[in-house]
Amino acid sequence: MNISDFVNQVDWVKVNGLVPVITQDYWRGRVLMLGYMNREALQKTLTERKITYYSRTRQVLWTKGETSGNFQIVKKVFLDCDNDTILIKIKQKGAVCHTGQSTCFYQEHK
Amino acid sequence: MNISDFVNQVDWVKVNGLVPVITQDYWRGRVLMLGYMNREALQKTLTERKITYYSRTRQVLWTKGETSGNFQIVKKVFLDCDNDTILIKIKQKGAVCHTGQSTCFYQEHK
Repeated sequence: MNISDFVNQVDWVKVNGLVPVITQDYWRGRVLMLGYMNREALQKTLTERKITYYSRTRQVLWTKGETSGNFQIVKKVFLDCDNDTILIKIKQKGAVCHTGQSTCFYQEHK
Repeated sequence: MNISDFVNQVDWVKVNGLVPVITQDYWRGRVLMLGYMNREALQKTLTERKITYYSRTRQVLWTKGETSGNFQIVKKVFLDCDNDTILIKIKQKGAVCHTGQSTCFYQEHK
């Protein structure tokens, strides 16, 4: 499937233009973070094989790592059964989290 | 931390009352699905150690497996750095997906 067909397969109406994207470490399987992409961010991500999100707070495209150098390199891309969530297995350069942690999910409920 | 404190730690304003919840297979590490919980669903999930989502289409609480028997048993619960996404490592009984697949993310972009 080419990139445009994949982008069009997302149910953009259901997700109100912003699809949630889960990133997972390609080798270790650790879940790293959840971000959001609009159509343009997804197209750019699949083209460049490097993740670009849509920042909901700043309302701009945001290539993860553009300031820190901690890019997320795309290895495998999956769409779920409802076409409303994406999972991307990545190679994470450096720390994923702005706190310096190796996953954003470090607060455990015990 | 007790359950109420954990529930209160979620940034419910930012998520508009519905927090996205990623489920991951506790042993194999496979990402299974993404669902949403309101405050009540999260409280119920943490209390019963079995996942209850909030169905956005039906607008009701929905205990995964209540009709199929494919319950999601809670093993570990994590909140992300921004307090706006939850990751739950689970024991999945039977197939997770209504299509019978062992993950909802079975459509791969190649």
